[in-house]
Amino acid sequence: MPLPSNLPIDADRLWDSLAEMAKIGATAKGGSCRLALSDEDKAGRDLFVSWCEAAGCTVTVDRIGNIFARRRGRDDSLAPVVMGSHLDTQPTGGRFDGVFGVLAALEVVRSLNDRGVETLHPVEVAVWTNEEGSRFSPPMMGSGVVTGIFTLEEILDKVAQDGARLGDELVRTGYAGEASVDHPMHAYLEAHIEQGPVLEVEGKEIGVVTGAQGQRWYEVTVTGVEAHAGPTPMRLRRDALVAASAMVQAVQRVGLETAGDPCATVGILDVHPHSRNVIPGRVFFTVDLRHPNADTLADMDRRFRAAVAEIAEQQGVSAEIADFWHFPPTPFAEPLVDRVREAASGFGFSHRDIVSGAGHDAVYVAGKVPTAMIFIPCEDGISHNEVENISPADGARGAAVLFETLVATAGRP
Amino acid sequence: MPLPSNLPIDADRLWDSLAEMAKIGATAKGGSCRLALSDEDKAGRDLFVSWCEAAGCTVTVDRIGNIFARRRGRDDSLAPVVMGSHLDTQPTGGRFDGVFGVLAALEVVRSLNDRGVETLHPVEVAVWTNEEGSRFSPPMMGSGVVTGIFTLEEILDKVAQDGARLGDELVRTGYAGEASVDHPMHAYLEAHIEQGPVLEVEGKEIGVVTGAQGQRWYEVTVTGVEAHAGPTPMRLRRDALVAASAMVQAVQRVGLETAGDPCATVGILDVHPHSRNVIPGRVFFTVDLRHPNADTLADMDRRFRAAVAEIAEQQGVSAEIADFWHFPPTPFAEPLVDRVREAASGFGFSHRDIVSGAGHDAVYVAGKVPTAMIFIPCEDGISHNEVENISPADGARGAAVLFETLVATAGRP
Repeated sequence: MPLPSNLPIDADRLWDSLAEMAKIGATAKGGSCRLALSDEDKAGRDLFVSWCEAAGCTVTVDRIGNIFARRRGRDDSLAPVVMGSHLDTQPTGGRFDGVFGVLAALEVVRSLNDRGVETLHPVEVAVWTNEEGSRFSPPMMGSGVVTGIFTLEEILDKVAQDGARLGDELVRTGYAGEASVDHPMHAYLEAHIEQGPVLEVEGKEIGVVTGAQGQRWYEVTVTGVEAHAGPTPMRLRRDALVAASAMVQAVQRVGLETAGDPCATVGILDVHPHSRNVIPGRVFFTVDLRHPNADTLADMDRRFRAAVAEIAEQQGVSAEIADFWHFPPTPFAEPLVDRVREAASGFGFSHRDIVSGAGHDAVYVAGKVPTAMIFIPCEDGISHNEVENISPADGARGAAVLFETLVATAGRP
Repeated sequence: MPLPSNLPIDADRLWDSLAEMAKIGATAKGGSCRLALSDEDKAGRDLFVSWCEAAGCTVTVDRIGNIFARRRGRDDSLAPVVMGSHLDTQPTGGRFDGVFGVLAALEVVRSLNDRGVETLHPVEVAVWTNEEGSRFSPPMMGSGVVTGIFTLEEILDKVAQDGARLGDELVRTGYAGEASVDHPMHAYLEAHIEQGPVLEVEGKEIGVVTGAQGQRWYEVTVTGVEAHAGPTPMRLRRDALVAASAMVQAVQRVGLETAGDPCATVGILDVHPHSRNVIPGRVFFTVDLRHPNADTLADMDRRFRAAVAEIAEQQGVSAEIADFWHFPPTPFAEPLVDRVREAASGFGFSHRDIVSGAGHDAVYVAGKVPTAMIFIPCEDGISHNEVENISPADGARGAAVLFETLVATAGRP
């Protein structure tokens, strides 16, 4: 659909800001590299802060380096409605993952100014520290500290692969703020590219995110008997890779045979001893199961474990499953989700409810305050990649829905 | 069965020599490390030469470093009957792979001396250079040069991973001989550990090797679409690992559903980009198909290719199969094989016909002169491993069969 002419935001200004930010850490293939608390991340943050101050906002930085740019509310003692995302990227990241949410939020503030719209609650644009987790692990540090997932102290002591301590890098880049990490929020809204192909494939303009999938991550070690590929007859083999490949098929079936929005993925598989003419004696692989419904995810877990045990017995090998990580399904706040849906409908945008399969700052924040997310399509569903792309019109639609949802949540005086 | 008391060889002397040789390059876990043309390999060769000279043999070395220790025949102008194998080992090799064939041959010569047995043809014990191919690639260099598989010049110029040139290492270790690599042979006999479990599982004492399996090695690259594990629904995925694991299952079926002595192995499988939460976009794997019958091997090849193509189409991925190496089935000389079988029967040893699944110097030599091999069981079928083991009685049986076959082939005057 063509873009309506009466949008409450300035599509060109948003696109120009995205292009300007993308120049910082620009890569040869058209992406961006702004690793958390690198010189490039500092430059991106500085540019953002200058834009916010030009828009009349008051900028504060908390002790984990999260930036909050505040536009006063009619009753400035109320907790702010916070919009935001992150400015850091993957090493060969794109121009929109995270950045879109931050600059769409800034565009909302700029548009509120242009239109002289006053809100009851103050409004803030947040930049969360180190969402990507590429330079410093784990990911989603800034939002995780604010919501009590991590302690401030443990995160400040994290050391990057390049040897830098996170707390020292905050000081070096000028983002070791003094504000408490116990930041009050009335509600949180995050716009983001989908990072998947669903909206594009179905021709939808807006994804109304109803929550985030629960995730269960595992490590599986299959042990058979290593032997020469030539002299060992088929019937006497205990081939760890033959067993593991049947388990990969079983993981796929767990996904395919589950209703709703399941994901089941084997992303890493290592073969030992890794020789052309040696029957593999050991295989290690990872499993990533996701579902928005906790009961269904538990059922996927049961079927996965049963299949691995059955295949191991059939193949005469042993298989150990280790739990690596677990994150429960996170439903977003229904009234907020409803507002996102109503805003999309109000503009006449095609939309669908969607569950976030990826981790986002919003998933941590949702554990503390009412939260919603707005997805926009991304080209071919590709993300975490320098060719990551969106259309200016899709960006404008997402910012418009964010504007309407923000105003409805922050309230007219 | 207990060992007969009237064997033509000295079981204790053979066992003592094996133990003495194993001290050179001995590893902590009871194996041996004598990489081709290393200091340890030189020490092993020197010990072997000293033993041969003490047994009255004339030792010559050819230009690729193969050693031939010659015992005169009644008609010394006739081509020799050659017995042998190799003294080099894998990095964490065992005490018997190759070594047994060399020292069993030496034991035959010593026993011919003890018994004053004269043969019509001269008799030689051969040590082939670099059978294992661990330090210098390809394997079976010495026998390959002698039989015209490789040219002398190309092999002399091979460079090890440690940077050493093979020709230079021959000079350094004193084994750059002057004899022509065009070595006349009347027949070739090689005793070897089975390196597989068949004889042990079936309780057989001697394997009468009727030939070597043909081999076809491939490299397969499966290309799907790399994507985030979370936001990408199961039905929209083109998961290269799901497809590749179905292909591994298909390779296994090609092996299981083939009559005779098939082998079908995937030994290497690499996943890209190799991340827990990224759907694999590319998988590389190797395939090793073997069968003693050329037509059957060709049929296995056809079924393998068809299965890969069918799975690729079903899964919406592409799959490229590259031919990596091909070696036709090699039948051994029937009259010689018959003599091995008769010798085993003559001693009352239980035996079975068997096809060699592994590569041996004998497989190259068989292309040029009548050849046979004698297998003895190895513990749990384990080889290329420091725990590789045989029983003294099995070693003695193998040497006794080699003795009888040698005498029958070299002829009484």
